[in-house]
Amino acid sequence: MKPDQEHIDRWLEARKNQRAQRNESNLLSGLVSGSRAALGQAITLIESSNPADQEIAQQLLRNLPAPTQVAKRIGITGVPGVGKSTFIENFGLQLVEKGYKVAVLAIDPSSSRTGGSILGDKTRMERLSQELNVFIRPSAAGRTLGGVAKHTREAIALCEAAGYDIILVETVGVGQSETLVYGMVDFFLLLMLTGAGDELQGIKRGIMELADTIIINKADGPNEAAAKAARSEYAGALHVFSQRPDQWQPRVLCTSGLTGLGLTELWSQIEAFFVHMQFNGALQQKRKEQELHLFEQLLSDVLQQQFFADSNKKSAFIQLKEAIARGELLAYEAISAILQKY
Amino acid sequence: MKPDQEHIDRWLEARKNQRAQRNESNLLSGLVSGSRAALGQAITLIESSNPADQEIAQQLLRNLPAPTQVAKRIGITGVPGVGKSTFIENFGLQLVEKGYKVAVLAIDPSSSRTGGSILGDKTRMERLSQELNVFIRPSAAGRTLGGVAKHTREAIALCEAAGYDIILVETVGVGQSETLVYGMVDFFLLLMLTGAGDELQGIKRGIMELADTIIINKADGPNEAAAKAARSEYAGALHVFSQRPDQWQPRVLCTSGLTGLGLTELWSQIEAFFVHMQFNGALQQKRKEQELHLFEQLLSDVLQQQFFADSNKKSAFIQLKEAIARGELLAYEAISAILQKY
Repeated sequence: MKPDQEHIDRWLEARKNQRAQRNESNLLSGLVSGSRAALGQAITLIESSNPADQEIAQQLLRNLPAPTQVAKRIGITGVPGVGKSTFIENFGLQLVEKGYKVAVLAIDPSSSRTGGSILGDKTRMERLSQELNVFIRPSAAGRTLGGVAKHTREAIALCEAAGYDIILVETVGVGQSETLVYGMVDFFLLLMLTGAGDELQGIKRGIMELADTIIINKADGPNEAAAKAARSEYAGALHVFSQRPDQWQPRVLCTSGLTGLGLTELWSQIEAFFVHMQFNGALQQKRKEQELHLFEQLLSDVLQQQFFADSNKKSAFIQLKEAIARGELLAYEAISAILQKY
Repeated sequence: MKPDQEHIDRWLEARKNQRAQRNESNLLSGLVSGSRAALGQAITLIESSNPADQEIAQQLLRNLPAPTQVAKRIGITGVPGVGKSTFIENFGLQLVEKGYKVAVLAIDPSSSRTGGSILGDKTRMERLSQELNVFIRPSAAGRTLGGVAKHTREAIALCEAAGYDIILVETVGVGQSETLVYGMVDFFLLLMLTGAGDELQGIKRGIMELADTIIINKADGPNEAAAKAARSEYAGALHVFSQRPDQWQPRVLCTSGLTGLGLTELWSQIEAFFVHMQFNGALQQKRKEQELHLFEQLLSDVLQQQFFADSNKKSAFIQLKEAIARGELLAYEAISAILQKY
């Protein structure tokens, strides 16, 4: 019976491949023709941990046509409460009015939300989500920060193949998500509030210097005067570390979701940025460097995953970390312990 | 003859161990009694790639007595030309006058200097190097950034065991050395020059926000007025991102190696910093976090070293990187290529 079984196995394998190819080519044509459903399915596939799904997803990514034009990848960060959702809704609606196709992706590595957030994200950007030329996708899922980053990068590639001109990538603005997003966008926008008080504590040090534009949000009503004062204060601060290798001079703007203040000015800034970065070749350079950096990071992630896949190694690592946290062990002692054991 | 051979082998092994122990205990007693020669030898051992030396070095590190008091670990960074050597010489001499024992370590991962730099570092800090209570050690050697970091951390531990109260860790201020040093010191000092011009371009973005104090150096003669203006400008900038979790408020000072301006004020700042950080428990917390972070980094380094030890893997990695740099490949394509192959 062995030859028969082999025959059946081969046939099953061939049918599986055919199906995968059909799935992949259906998805690809749907994606390229601009179907939001196809785009959504494709992103679900790249986020799936099922090997068969991953097979199709990777095939799809390899076959993506090069985008006909350079999409603008815009990262948006700011602590919770700064008004990111309202800002993105208003800003997105303005972009749609100008005739752009806008995709909104979100990163929240700390979140354990999964399906529920689809509703969440669509609810918090209700008007924007009803637009035909808008695709909104909630927080990328993933157990590791590297995994989340990978999924979001791939989602960006999918959105671009689907003809979206502007990709807004939002972070929750805590932990390491800002630097993650900074590493995958062209333009990095930092939203802040007036009153350099408690709200600012959540912003990781060094993030301000990464921003290509800073926004003082909620600059309306009784807040407006304080926002303008903060604007000049931040502008002064930016001036101090102004000398960037790419020669871009970041600016500070006041915006308001209520009055629409500053959104037109912001878009002019972003357009000027892209003209500047494309003119001096810095944009292409930046994207290549991001890819190189990502590659190194992915390799490091993979190696760590392989290490931690061994539960003995993992528990040894955790125990050593705890000993370090208690002050009983120094890092180099812990690493020699690991090296001696494995 | 086999038993005899075994006997000889065992005897040789025992003698080797005895020698290593004698070496280690000689070094240790020399170190603890404050011998600069012993300290220098011990650092040479930790930097050695010879397994026998490493054996002694690791044994020595494990047996180091806990320092009787908390030494102040101070990182000093700034672009080439900012006057770090002169600054460290003057600052160091002031500390010696106050009765402190001062160690100066340097990190320069980009450098290929080895033995020659001993002369170089001692020449550029001639007066300081003649002081009895001063130990100056040139750039840590090492092929990888992680290796350099490890050696410097270990050198800090050795200096502390040898009774040095203040450890100055200098970087060349380019590339990644600033963040390395930031990750191993308590207090991080950034030296700058007036005229926010070309000199500033070398400072990595985000570094300013890491500084615990910023110094405008060479504030003398015709430069003094400009330095004072820069001082208020930077102070304004620091004020903007002032809210640190550890509640420390960084300041900006003007200093001059020629006139000695600002050095007393700087030391008051540093003392205030340590009082502040020890009072609220932040110093201990910071050191533990540094150790935890270092441990993760060391593990990642080790895993990468193991990967790159295979020359096939290494050349595949380099080829893929080149393809990414040419824009022919995306990072996730490159990583799947590696995963499929290995």
